[in-house]
Amino acid sequence: MDRTGLLTDRYELTMLDSWVRDGSVDEPAVFEAFARRLPEGRRYGVLGGLGRLLPMIERFTFDADEVAWLQEQGVVGEETAAYLRDFRFRGDIDAYREGDLYFPGSPVLTVSGTLGECVALETLVLSVLNHDAAIASAALRMVDAAGGRPLIEMGTRRTHEQAAIATARAAYLAGFGSTSNLAAGRDHGIPTVGTAAHAFTLAHATEEDAFRSQVAALGVGTTLLVDTYDIAEGIRTAVRVAGRELGAIRIDSGDLAEEAGKARALLDELGATSTKIVVTSDLDEFVIAALADAPIDGYGVGTRVATGSGHPTASMVYKLVEIAGRPVSKKSKDKISVGGRKLAWRRYDEAGLLVSEHFTAAPVVEVRRAQRGASKPPGADPRPVQIPVMRGGETVHAPTLDEIREFTAATLATLPSDARSVAAGAPYLTVTHLEEA
Amino acid sequence: MDRTGLLTDRYELTMLDSWVRDGSVDEPAVFEAFARRLPEGRRYGVLGGLGRLLPMIERFTFDADEVAWLQEQGVVGEETAAYLRDFRFRGDIDAYREGDLYFPGSPVLTVSGTLGECVALETLVLSVLNHDAAIASAALRMVDAAGGRPLIEMGTRRTHEQAAIATARAAYLAGFGSTSNLAAGRDHGIPTVGTAAHAFTLAHATEEDAFRSQVAALGVGTTLLVDTYDIAEGIRTAVRVAGRELGAIRIDSGDLAEEAGKARALLDELGATSTKIVVTSDLDEFVIAALADAPIDGYGVGTRVATGSGHPTASMVYKLVEIAGRPVSKKSKDKISVGGRKLAWRRYDEAGLLVSEHFTAAPVVEVRRAQRGASKPPGADPRPVQIPVMRGGETVHAPTLDEIREFTAATLATLPSDARSVAAGAPYLTVTHLEEA
Repeated sequence: MDRTGLLTDRYELTMLDSWVRDGSVDEPAVFEAFARRLPEGRRYGVLGGLGRLLPMIERFTFDADEVAWLQEQGVVGEETAAYLRDFRFRGDIDAYREGDLYFPGSPVLTVSGTLGECVALETLVLSVLNHDAAIASAALRMVDAAGGRPLIEMGTRRTHEQAAIATARAAYLAGFGSTSNLAAGRDHGIPTVGTAAHAFTLAHATEEDAFRSQVAALGVGTTLLVDTYDIAEGIRTAVRVAGRELGAIRIDSGDLAEEAGKARALLDELGATSTKIVVTSDLDEFVIAALADAPIDGYGVGTRVATGSGHPTASMVYKLVEIAGRPVSKKSKDKISVGGRKLAWRRYDEAGLLVSEHFTAAPVVEVRRAQRGASKPPGADPRPVQIPVMRGGETVHAPTLDEIREFTAATLATLPSDARSVAAGAPYLTVTHLEEA
Repeated sequence: MDRTGLLTDRYELTMLDSWVRDGSVDEPAVFEAFARRLPEGRRYGVLGGLGRLLPMIERFTFDADEVAWLQEQGVVGEETAAYLRDFRFRGDIDAYREGDLYFPGSPVLTVSGTLGECVALETLVLSVLNHDAAIASAALRMVDAAGGRPLIEMGTRRTHEQAAIATARAAYLAGFGSTSNLAAGRDHGIPTVGTAAHAFTLAHATEEDAFRSQVAALGVGTTLLVDTYDIAEGIRTAVRVAGRELGAIRIDSGDLAEEAGKARALLDELGATSTKIVVTSDLDEFVIAALADAPIDGYGVGTRVATGSGHPTASMVYKLVEIAGRPVSKKSKDKISVGGRKLAWRRYDEAGLLVSEHFTAAPVVEVRRAQRGASKPPGADPRPVQIPVMRGGETVHAPTLDEIREFTAATLATLPSDARSVAAGAPYLTVTHLEEA
């Protein structure tokens, strides 16, 4: 596995260099990551990326060549070079669970350690969380709009080749059922699926030849792409070739509701009553919601999930909130820039629906006690949101992707139905600061 | 260097499997990548990513474990498994130069080889070109709007950690002067720069302490961030600490034109007449154009360059255009879906401005002749656009990033001024199909 130390903005290391020189590098510090706002119209955000981030923090080191290069470039001096050769994050991280909801000001990640080790992580923390949260947030809206119909993530060709793997992972944890991306299948165990491209049909002399070739290779359970020429003709050919047991057809063009309706009628007429209909072509949560009444069995989503449905980055920032035990805040009087380490709490109503989120400024000892549940009777409100995910530089929370996926689904169920509409609205919650818990 | 074979959609390999079974896998084929459209309002696109793509195509292989996994997952059968164990792209690629302009329908990349080897590359080709062209296209508009003032790419924290490196590269080839991303500096030789974060100031007891620490580490030529508390006070403190030789100040908030004007007046009053003013904070080509008259010496651009200024992906597709010597096209009558391999040409006026782009359908022999310049007198119009970039699987065109950057600047100069405005407009050119060259 690769080192991640250089996935960093230059100024993190020049600041570190200043702190090594002025002696403050080992001061205890606390940084928090949070989103100042949600994208316009969104009611909630979904934390993605934590499970990718923690192993990358464990690999946040610099080898001798990298340190020599940093010196040569004038980024760091000799003393900081020595510091970096030994660098390894040895601090603690508390976080919202991956897949959990967040709102403006929710302290989703809290990094405690020395000033030097906390600042070094800033860029990596934000790259991973901003990307993966943007995808997970868009994906969960799509999953919810699909109302139980399966979704296939197929955005790989629309995003950077490595971001594509993270995209598949974030979409899956949000509830997508599968991905087209083979590396994501291999690396993360996500089910992979695929049909065929128009080129496959075009490369054969006839559509029938193409379908015969595909069925010979993949069996009658496969999905045949029927819209290269005429859709009705394509469906007739597909059923003639594969029989009534044909797994599915895919439609990638036209008015999808209308074409799906016509396709269902024709498939039924041909006796292929169990053959499923999968649609693709510029789908997003809005189109999916609008297709709720069409006889569609699955959606393939590409561009719009890989680009966060119009919002390809979350607005997370990473801020110093405590240094040497004193709270720190910028001049802003905004409540969400309040200084000091924050402990987040949520209240639920009797039906289990989320009612409010607030935070209290809390020294570390209170944080530990709350996390052990010692300060409150079990199950009583308010419930703590954060959990320990890294201690002394070692990951202590590593759920499987399927566990994260189950947690995400359970968390979504704590939102009332109006907050789950795709219609534009304000953030469902305003995270408030309570002076006393 | 890592293998890239699995950075692929499952259906590419299931189609390949069908073709191995039906015997057509070794048919000669030609695929082309092109954008069907530009993002709304854009006058031109910029091809990015070619220099990243070609080495990744050379590494497009599968090791024994990967092939075994593909078999286990039912993606390929035994015969295709054997095919993949030996897989290596051995075909030819012609392309527009990296950094060149493109318009809807411009055949920016032409892949010739066997059907099997061409189809296998589809996902990787599109991931790289769609990402990097989106960044380069946005970045060149920003560079042009900045009118010679230097731009710093600092979007790393707003995008996937690996996409960030490609972002820095694409921005640099479009004319950005530097990046904050250290890995991009190391991997691509891009100059890296940085200032300091608000956290740096906040971590010190006073702003003056922070500035003293930074100047001690980085010298008086550094850039001091002056807006953590009061900007005017910050500037006075900065000049008091660093002296009149202070390199630059950075302003990251407020009305940037107004703050820059006040800052310039104050710096001049303090005798720091050569101290530069750098601004950051949600800049894009529109904001940069609006700041043209403010006394600003440089721009730091983050989110908007890393997300393609509202268009994080280009709309490139990869289409089969020729199989076994016969042209192939989909049912669409759209001119840009015309079958057959395309040879692109451009005409220029006497002032060297680009006047038109068209393509002719051409067998390979004509393509070779045109590329050698043999079919036309040297320098005469129309000039061929494509060049050979890979032959027999070996890269034959590998300019340095600085060479690409120079080419991009020269190419931009072939656009008339109205096509270079940031104002919304139609694509500058409609690429036409001429039946005869």
